[in-house]
Amino acid sequence: MKKPVIPVEPLPAFLVADAVRSALAEDLGRAGDITTAATVPASARAHAVLAAREPGRIAGLDFCIAAFRTLDPSIDVSISVPDGADVARGEAIAVIRGPARPILSAERVALNFTGRLSGIATATAHLVSLVAGTPARVTCTRKTTPGLRAFEKYAVRCGGGYNHRFALDDGILIKDNHIVAAGGLTRAIAAARSSAGHMVHVEVEVDRLDQLEEALAAGANSILLDNMSPDLLREAVRRTGGRAVLEASGNINATTIAAVAATGVDLISSGAITHSAKCLDLGLDFQTA
Amino acid sequence: MKKPVIPVEPLPAFLVADAVRSALAEDLGRAGDITTAATVPASARAHAVLAAREPGRIAGLDFCIAAFRTLDPSIDVSISVPDGADVARGEAIAVIRGPARPILSAERVALNFTGRLSGIATATAHLVSLVAGTPARVTCTRKTTPGLRAFEKYAVRCGGGYNHRFALDDGILIKDNHIVAAGGLTRAIAAARSSAGHMVHVEVEVDRLDQLEEALAAGANSILLDNMSPDLLREAVRRTGGRAVLEASGNINATTIAAVAATGVDLISSGAITHSAKCLDLGLDFQTA
Amino acid sequence: MKKPVIPVEPLPAFLVADAVRSALAEDLGRAGDITTAATVPASARAHAVLAAREPGRIAGLDFCIAAFRTLDPSIDVSISVPDGADVARGEAIAVIRGPARPILSAERVALNFTGRLSGIATATAHLVSLVAGTPARVTCTRKTTPGLRAFEKYAVRCGGGYNHRFALDDGILIKDNHIVAAGGLTRAIAAARSSAGHMVHVEVEVDRLDQLEEALAAGANSILLDNMSPDLLREAVRRTGGRAVLEASGNINATTIAAVAATGVDLISSGAITHSAKCLDLGLDFQTA
Amino acid sequence: MKKPVIPVEPLPAFLVADAVRSALAEDLGRAGDITTAATVPASARAHAVLAAREPGRIAGLDFCIAAFRTLDPSIDVSISVPDGADVARGEAIAVIRGPARPILSAERVALNFTGRLSGIATATAHLVSLVAGTPARVTCTRKTTPGLRAFEKYAVRCGGGYNHRFALDDGILIKDNHIVAAGGLTRAIAAARSSAGHMVHVEVEVDRLDQLEEALAAGANSILLDNMSPDLLREAVRRTGGRAVLEASGNINATTIAAVAATGVDLISSGAITHSAKCLDLGLDFQTA
Amino acid sequence: MKKPVIPVEPLPAFLVADAVRSALAEDLGRAGDITTAATVPASARAHAVLAAREPGRIAGLDFCIAAFRTLDPSIDVSISVPDGADVARGEAIAVIRGPARPILSAERVALNFTGRLSGIATATAHLVSLVAGTPARVTCTRKTTPGLRAFEKYAVRCGGGYNHRFALDDGILIKDNHIVAAGGLTRAIAAARSSAGHMVHVEVEVDRLDQLEEALAAGANSILLDNMSPDLLREAVRRTGGRAVLEASGNINATTIAAVAATGVDLISSGAITHSAKCLDLGLDFQTA
Amino acid sequence: MKKPVIPVEPLPAFLVADAVRSALAEDLGRAGDITTAATVPASARAHAVLAAREPGRIAGLDFCIAAFRTLDPSIDVSISVPDGADVARGEAIAVIRGPARPILSAERVALNFTGRLSGIATATAHLVSLVAGTPARVTCTRKTTPGLRAFEKYAVRCGGGYNHRFALDDGILIKDNHIVAAGGLTRAIAAARSSAGHMVHVEVEVDRLDQLEEALAAGANSILLDNMSPDLLREAVRRTGGRAVLEASGNINATTIAAVAATGVDLISSGAITHSAKCLDLGLDFQTA
Repeated sequence: MKKPVIPVEPLPAFLVADAVRSALAEDLGRAGDITTAATVPASARAHAVLAAREPGRIAGLDFCIAAFRTLDPSIDVSISVPDGADVARGEAIAVIRGPARPILSAERVALNFTGRLSGIATATAHLVSLVAGTPARVTCTRKTTPGLRAFEKYAVRCGGGYNHRFALDDGILIKDNHIVAAGGLTRAIAAARSSAGHMVHVEVEVDRLDQLEEALAAGANSILLDNMSPDLLREAVRRTGGRAVLEASGNINATTIAAVAATGVDLISSGAITHSAKCLDLGLDFQTA
Repeated sequence: MKKPVIPVEPLPAFLVADAVRSALAEDLGRAGDITTAATVPASARAHAVLAAREPGRIAGLDFCIAAFRTLDPSIDVSISVPDGADVARGEAIAVIRGPARPILSAERVALNFTGRLSGIATATAHLVSLVAGTPARVTCTRKTTPGLRAFEKYAVRCGGGYNHRFALDDGILIKDNHIVAAGGLTRAIAAARSSAGHMVHVEVEVDRLDQLEEALAAGANSILLDNMSPDLLREAVRRTGGRAVLEASGNINATTIAAVAATGVDLISSGAITHSAKCLDLGLDFQTA
Repeated sequence: MKKPVIPVEPLPAFLVADAVRSALAEDLGRAGDITTAATVPASARAHAVLAAREPGRIAGLDFCIAAFRTLDPSIDVSISVPDGADVARGEAIAVIRGPARPILSAERVALNFTGRLSGIATATAHLVSLVAGTPARVTCTRKTTPGLRAFEKYAVRCGGGYNHRFALDDGILIKDNHIVAAGGLTRAIAAARSSAGHMVHVEVEVDRLDQLEEALAAGANSILLDNMSPDLLREAVRRTGGRAVLEASGNINATTIAAVAATGVDLISSGAITHSAKCLDLGLDFQTA
Repeated sequence: MKKPVIPVEPLPAFLVADAVRSALAEDLGRAGDITTAATVPASARAHAVLAAREPGRIAGLDFCIAAFRTLDPSIDVSISVPDGADVARGEAIAVIRGPARPILSAERVALNFTGRLSGIATATAHLVSLVAGTPARVTCTRKTTPGLRAFEKYAVRCGGGYNHRFALDDGILIKDNHIVAAGGLTRAIAAARSSAGHMVHVEVEVDRLDQLEEALAAGANSILLDNMSPDLLREAVRRTGGRAVLEASGNINATTIAAVAATGVDLISSGAITHSAKCLDLGLDFQTA
Repeated sequence: MKKPVIPVEPLPAFLVADAVRSALAEDLGRAGDITTAATVPASARAHAVLAAREPGRIAGLDFCIAAFRTLDPSIDVSISVPDGADVARGEAIAVIRGPARPILSAERVALNFTGRLSGIATATAHLVSLVAGTPARVTCTRKTTPGLRAFEKYAVRCGGGYNHRFALDDGILIKDNHIVAAGGLTRAIAAARSSAGHMVHVEVEVDRLDQLEEALAAGANSILLDNMSPDLLREAVRRTGGRAVLEASGNINATTIAAVAATGVDLISSGAITHSAKCLDLGLDFQTA
Repeated sequence: MKKPVIPVEPLPAFLVADAVRSALAEDLGRAGDITTAATVPASARAHAVLAAREPGRIAGLDFCIAAFRTLDPSIDVSISVPDGADVARGEAIAVIRGPARPILSAERVALNFTGRLSGIATATAHLVSLVAGTPARVTCTRKTTPGLRAFEKYAVRCGGGYNHRFALDDGILIKDNHIVAAGGLTRAIAAARSSAGHMVHVEVEVDRLDQLEEALAAGANSILLDNMSPDLLREAVRRTGGRAVLEASGNINATTIAAVAATGVDLISSGAITHSAKCLDLGLDFQTA
């Protein structure tokens, strides 16, 4: 088995299994795969190769395995390119062997999960490659598909990215509306500190350097620098002098990210790696017996 | 309220409500929106405008409404650009008024649903616009996000597209592996007909014109012409002479679709409009009181 | 193992397992089988035969197997009369061997599922036998038990019947109220065609021969002939001349079905085979060791 | 509103609502009622009468109301023949008024629930009427539809019947296998008494009069007399002399029940009233505006 | 394996598994055990001993086993002190061996279930020991943790206690408000008898001896004597003379229970054994390799 | 309405509603409140006062309100002592008015939730009062009831306490086993930092002062001082000099906490306030009309 670029702790198997069962129920509908039942003999066996139709970073093979094996536990799936590893165009990722009917019936669910998660991993890995050599980490946001957040954040990790908040409850992120409502940035940070538990990190979003100074003075753990130019970011890094984690955000893409990373910020966040990643093109090639 | 380009029957409200509750639970986590609770007074009220940051076709506002109103039924959402209508860059889509805390806490869930579904509607509408004036309909596939298929197919309808199968059980689609397993195309179609109910439509995928002839002779209702050049497609249309519905598939995108549509096929299917649509960029602008 | 009259693709195992777990939870309640726990030693073993108390067609043995094996995976169930096969009065269908406690505790759930589904299969097979030698297929309706539709439609297939729509979404069936609302039959069919995907079959219900003509002209795929006499049905078959599938419906029972089938209609639908089928009388006979 | 023959405490509304939502989801499928959406204008209104096509006892109207109002809370349902009341052939049970689309879309779910439960109530009421004037109560069994037991037992109450155990945990019912395993009837009853809580009633099934004597001596609260002739039952009643509740079971139907009731037993149980009741034929008649 | 003081029929494994999966999902959150993933090598193995930090009665080990084995089925758990047995301070209850990561990640869920249920068993066993030598049984109430009632009642059985009603539906318990509403105790009992099935036991709560007489005359199966002094209880026992089961309730604790039991009542009920039991202090001791 | 000592953001209403519906389903069982249905006329109305039988801190009234209003939305609940406020013995907390049947049927679920959560709030408030005047905050642990963690942590906040981690995923807490596995404390902290996102706080548990020094040097955000004497704690505070948050843990109770707080630690954590809190004794007093 290929070595992953990024070794990632697998998702809990019982959560993967639940998601796959729901997806299979969605795709089998009420009468199941009526095409396969009508045309493929129950005794037929298949040998199929999951292959990449384009290069990318793999994520989500546990969903693929679960899709096949939920329909028939006798199906054997052997992985050659694991989650967190890169695949070349045309390269085989896994081989699936077993009864033909359940392999055909589970194919779409397997591909839908793995294609989507690999697409996110690939988009992430691309941005990560563009900031190589800088201290900047690429991080995701809460702009994820409803119901799939934990899985999409896992795919970000497979891509070499880092996770931002998983939900509204595992970190304080004070934005402009909060600042206005609280009566100013300093007050907002103080209010956050006084109500939050000690494990809760406080981040505040700022648009201007004077706000940065205020946030630093008020003791924010991190500061999100929203839509600042590289010049402003560089100045922010200089003024901060390591007193807080700095996150650059807004208009991050393959064209802009290198310049942002060069400013010395600690983090660069991107919503697009989850909300607008292209599905990685994967396919199942059936081998003639 | 703006008139939709495409009037679409709304999704059942109780299904939308269930999906939204799950997404809110995912985003609120265990402790809820701790930032807002710490910084925004319970008595604060907000007036926010949902606006488009880029032009597109809207879909999924019922999820947006449900997100706000599930957290607080006293929130008022009034829509000016409904599902199925086009929005210009900067145009207001809806106005949200009510207590500030639940509006802030539901914002991300609202945007995640509506941005994603509007992205699919926009991608669909774009392809639909490129085949205008031809008889071709744009149709989706089963390459959808696990768990969201019914919603994404709804978004396709908002984009002016048509839905292909919702699952493996609501239509026969005979592909190459089925043909091989059944011992040939004619046998596969016959097997399908003999087991399927009378409401079930039989489609068969072919790569070559001789297969097309066999499929027509065997009585397929529709024929999927896989990865054929416009010339071949045109010849397929000619030979079919209206005896079956013809669907072109494979390598469909904004560059290629017009030529495909010009061949006279009835349907053009695209996986990308669901599996790789970019999220439509929507934002919530809070008005100062 | 006996050969089935009708070979039927099994239901997905994970859906059967879910339904069985719910039913076991319903029957075990909060404290479980307190009678068995109090009176049967944990070490006792049982050898029981599932037998038919009356002749019939078997359906639903996977639920029976799952009921026993969910409570204790060490229970062995060996089937001699599989789904889709006929059983004689007194004939053994399966042998169950294992620890006595879980066999006794799962008995009622096993029998409730298999008795009900076999009852439906038996009622279907009876009607099917009465139309033997005619082209008519027996088909079911949406008059099924809430929550069990997919399973009851499976039982219809075990009985040699065919399935009509599984839900409101997998076929157009235009009835009198739709016709009135749409402003006539031709308009209704046109509206249906223009909104539905190409995989969707359009059927229309008619009471009179002039409506049949209109439906044929408008291009309906199937026509439901509601409550027509055999003479009218025969005339409908003659006028249609194969241009559409014809379904006879209304007042179908063991007394009337042969005459209806003799008219040459393609399909005869019956709600009673699902909504009013008698449970097949099955029992578990415990063998003395 | 007609007065019920049997006033029955309604089922908890939130449980009815859950069951109805599941059934609507099953019947609407992924795309909803595509026929109605295509043919009925959104503005159309309907006025429909739920009427009986045959006489019977009504049960389950809360499911009917919930089916319509879940799809559209603006639908008005007014009941004239409530649960527990008898309806004549052709009599109106309820009037439904509101937007036509959701009324048409919810119709089948409404009828499937109310038809089935009214069928059970009707079958029960028929047996109850045949034992009028005797002390015998008609009672149901655990031979119910998986997932619907609480609802079917409610229908039995609407029919004037009584409920036996709801599950394996709310009463001890010692049958022949338990007796053998426990080493005799006396031992089985003693074991039950020693482990069960004080709220738990102990019933034992016997085939012979000597077993009856043993059960009485051992202090059974109730005794199930299995498949005994009227003469034996009469003798059992005489010997028992009020020391235990006596339940007759086995081969109970409309032909046999009066003779059984005349023996003086306290209870007569029937599985057929739940597992094999015919659906009551109900229909929705749309009024022309 | 130590012999249990009280042999208790295990809970159905599939219900335990469901509860454990929910609890693991609650404790793993979205990103799982990030501490263990970061610090413990995937190849590390552990050998841990579940030990008691204080003496008590064990209950709930199936939850403990399920917690570890749901995360990794290769984990081996071997029990030396089973449910229903007593453990000494420092005594080993079970040994857990397998991969270190899932053992560390499941630890808290395992302890939370087993500590709580063992705490209930211990509190129950303590009261049971204080009434030894009297005929009195200790029984629980419906004052249980929402969602865990069946499990907590199981723990009571492990403690040697008996279960009262599991819910409002498996027994009639007439309290003061019911008596007032029904127009008196005799009427209330008569109303209960006339509506309840024959398996339903009728208990009535009384405060005074004259009410006891009325309840006995009206044929109550059990009588709950609320907050009576030992003298009054003794008089109640005398007057009842075995005609009904007598339950003492109110102000039951370790100080008072012996005197109450000495009065000759059949049952003594305590809410505190479920609603206010201290968690039994259990810990997992990791052995150095 | 009394002013709360601690104003706490309410839990999301839809999560409370779901938990209450499950608890009502558990308590109503299959047949509902058969006692009330039999004895209380449908027309009876009640006026009941929720009162404290002992002094304490209130938490969980939203569950109480939901319990009553889920069964009947016409029930009116008016609160005089809200969550986060203290109640005296005998003081009225809320008044419930409406139909008598649903008030009686929901009583136990209402009390079970509110009694348990108020018990936790009361135990927390007691510890909080004992550290008044020191900088120490009282915090909870993950030793909570499976399934109720978010609610119990809410109750801790009502008691004036703070929340520690909600799950294994929202903070790094490095304990002895992690340190051993990682090859030392410094390595463990470094590994945590390198894999965790920037919002993740890193805490490490130490037993000795030399470990404290190592943890400070390695940059831990917080340090858990396990089972240290007040003298050691005081020395730890001195050495730390504000470089990290210090949490004292182990053997914390009403007797020991003041001395621990006096050492100057920032946090004192207690498992007992959630896992072993006594239920607050609340009761519903029905007023005679």
